[in-house]
Amino acid sequence: MTRPIVFLSDLGLRDEFVGACHAVIARIAPGTTVIDLSHGVPPQDVNLGALLLAEVLRYGPDDSILLGVVDPGVGTARKAIAVETAGTQILVGPDNGLLSLAWRALGGVRRAFEISSPEVLLTPVSAVFHGRDVFAPAAAHLAAGLSIDRLGPSADPAALVSLTLDEPEVGPGTLACNVLDVDRFGNLRLNARAAHLEGAGLDRVQTLSVESTAMAVQARRTTTYGEVGIGEYAVLIDAWGWVSVIRFEANASAGLDVDRGDPVWIRASPEGND
Amino acid sequence: MTRPIVFLSDLGLRDEFVGACHAVIARIAPGTTVIDLSHGVPPQDVNLGALLLAEVLRYGPDDSILLGVVDPGVGTARKAIAVETAGTQILVGPDNGLLSLAWRALGGVRRAFEISSPEVLLTPVSAVFHGRDVFAPAAAHLAAGLSIDRLGPSADPAALVSLTLDEPEVGPGTLACNVLDVDRFGNLRLNARAAHLEGAGLDRVQTLSVESTAMAVQARRTTTYGEVGIGEYAVLIDAWGWVSVIRFEANASAGLDVDRGDPVWIRASPEGND
Amino acid sequence: MTRPIVFLSDLGLRDEFVGACHAVIARIAPGTTVIDLSHGVPPQDVNLGALLLAEVLRYGPDDSILLGVVDPGVGTARKAIAVETAGTQILVGPDNGLLSLAWRALGGVRRAFEISSPEVLLTPVSAVFHGRDVFAPAAAHLAAGLSIDRLGPSADPAALVSLTLDEPEVGPGTLACNVLDVDRFGNLRLNARAAHLEGAGLDRVQTLSVESTAMAVQARRTTTYGEVGIGEYAVLIDAWGWVSVIRFEANASAGLDVDRGDPVWIRASPEGND
Repeated sequence: MTRPIVFLSDLGLRDEFVGACHAVIARIAPGTTVIDLSHGVPPQDVNLGALLLAEVLRYGPDDSILLGVVDPGVGTARKAIAVETAGTQILVGPDNGLLSLAWRALGGVRRAFEISSPEVLLTPVSAVFHGRDVFAPAAAHLAAGLSIDRLGPSADPAALVSLTLDEPEVGPGTLACNVLDVDRFGNLRLNARAAHLEGAGLDRVQTLSVESTAMAVQARRTTTYGEVGIGEYAVLIDAWGWVSVIRFEANASAGLDVDRGDPVWIRASPEGND
Repeated sequence: MTRPIVFLSDLGLRDEFVGACHAVIARIAPGTTVIDLSHGVPPQDVNLGALLLAEVLRYGPDDSILLGVVDPGVGTARKAIAVETAGTQILVGPDNGLLSLAWRALGGVRRAFEISSPEVLLTPVSAVFHGRDVFAPAAAHLAAGLSIDRLGPSADPAALVSLTLDEPEVGPGTLACNVLDVDRFGNLRLNARAAHLEGAGLDRVQTLSVESTAMAVQARRTTTYGEVGIGEYAVLIDAWGWVSVIRFEANASAGLDVDRGDPVWIRASPEGND
Repeated sequence: MTRPIVFLSDLGLRDEFVGACHAVIARIAPGTTVIDLSHGVPPQDVNLGALLLAEVLRYGPDDSILLGVVDPGVGTARKAIAVETAGTQILVGPDNGLLSLAWRALGGVRRAFEISSPEVLLTPVSAVFHGRDVFAPAAAHLAAGLSIDRLGPSADPAALVSLTLDEPEVGPGTLACNVLDVDRFGNLRLNARAAHLEGAGLDRVQTLSVESTAMAVQARRTTTYGEVGIGEYAVLIDAWGWVSVIRFEANASAGLDVDRGDPVWIRASPEGND
């Protein structure tokens, strides 16, 4: 039995890109379970892809191969890598930081290898789609049991590209954040966690003010969607632990006129608190 | 071998929600076949989700676990349930009516259980995403052979939330319907079946008038798309038995300016009939 | 073990159409690997679907059943067919040319059969969705080992519908193409390959002019995305060998105001070449 592959990309599901990777995996490692974590990462958003790969770790199979393809530098000198960690999962993807939050969550890099063996690459390797010709074949061979050191020469763990995410600014009564992501419902995921709300003294404030550069709205501090009236804003902790701004049966992103990367401030509201 | 899971939700495929559920299933029940019936149910449209779950029953495997996640009340007092029916399938989802059309199609509820066992829930259970922490684990454990009565305490079948769908109004020569759904081609699925057309005396009328509050168009009564000219409207029975209004290589929803939930009237056209 | 199925359609992932086909396959051939090549083929674009089915052949498993559902003539007299080729793959789909580029790539048709056996069809066969009631069941039975001649009567290979794609016009210094497809990034795939660029004497020209009926832009001849500045146009060979016009971190389709089927001319730019 082959190891399962958890596959994340920004390739989208409209085109044949993801399907071609699935075809390659089925050819090399028949019967492999492929879990499509998401292919809707916004194009070239390495940061968000890195977050999702790190977050899925404790939910997926411990023997997974994690395959990440968010690769704005495809065809340039950036390396294609496979990473063995202190955990049981193996990571495969471009050396652009996409895998770095996952290997940190797994206790760090133990060994890393470039993917360059002619027995692994599909040749001629397309200069524009390493997902199909480099990363999917490597993940499939690992799923089928190939030893990681057969993929290519070893790479220096200390030289791999590693991400640092922007931290929110925590002041007394104010949390200054950025929008990490906007989901299909228009909910905002901010780059802050419950501990940041607490640090700003906002964790027990019932009515918050959420501000963009365009406008300010009142929002209730809640734990679920169901406590909020239609059209009302709320601040809650989302399923992955992020501070999230939602608007019940409406679109918080549109209402606040913010998108990914935009700044958002959370403060105690002057009104509505006891 | 594990039982297959048929998975329907309103979670969409842009984000990582569906992928996280797949990861959970693969961790608990490795090798399980998961059939993604649809994740494009419009957000919180419990009625449409319920219809789709009932309709797929005779097409999917008889030993399926049906997993439904359309859950506007997540985090509130609504129960998470698993339902054993007179049929062989087991149903898993929120107690909001989403499963009720399926259990009626399967001959009714035999036993029902709340999903609350700490051996099943992924803790801490997110207050906003029971798909990942409650429903997917329950479906996976059932797929792997766990007895349904191990999920939690039994629930009173008579107390479960059950849906009744709006019936169309059938008058002599007039069928007053609502739009159940608009598909990607802009085809309208109405809440009426062939028997309703017949009841209104419209089943053998060659040229019908289809009316929204905005406008009226002529439509041919056909059985297939291929009989209709480009841009022409037609009324036909869709693949699930619903009366459907289509516009060949064009968009009926846009043409009639109607969306889900809007009223539509079907009458004999004053013109074009022998 | 069953044979894998590679599934391509224009059914989209918003609705339950693809999911219903998966359900049918899982019922008839439990445990079958289904590779979703793409369900985002633009509605009724038989040409693009045919290209994708032919291109995936060398990436997917050699024992695949290829299932294609782009079927504007559903319910008309067009035949449903299964095709055995000089290769090992079997092709299943409507007789409208969708399979023809694949069978040509596989060395031609050896035997073909209509899909009409009552043991294969799901009855009553919907007049509007043969994907679920005709093609998916046929593919599943073949995956499970049914002999192709059990699907129905043999069909004359010479009478099957076969596609010919428009060739670009190659003149000295000019390549006149059409847009085959626009991907999610707005990249244009043209109906030309590297050999056509060469034939026009444009393969070593560093700066090209790309012209639509609306406007002309300068584009660099590159091999990868990474060499181009943000907002710049480039002409490169895409992952499947097609001449492609891209715009780095921007949308070439919008910038040139072209869509599928529109003409595009490539010439040497009067400026920017040594």
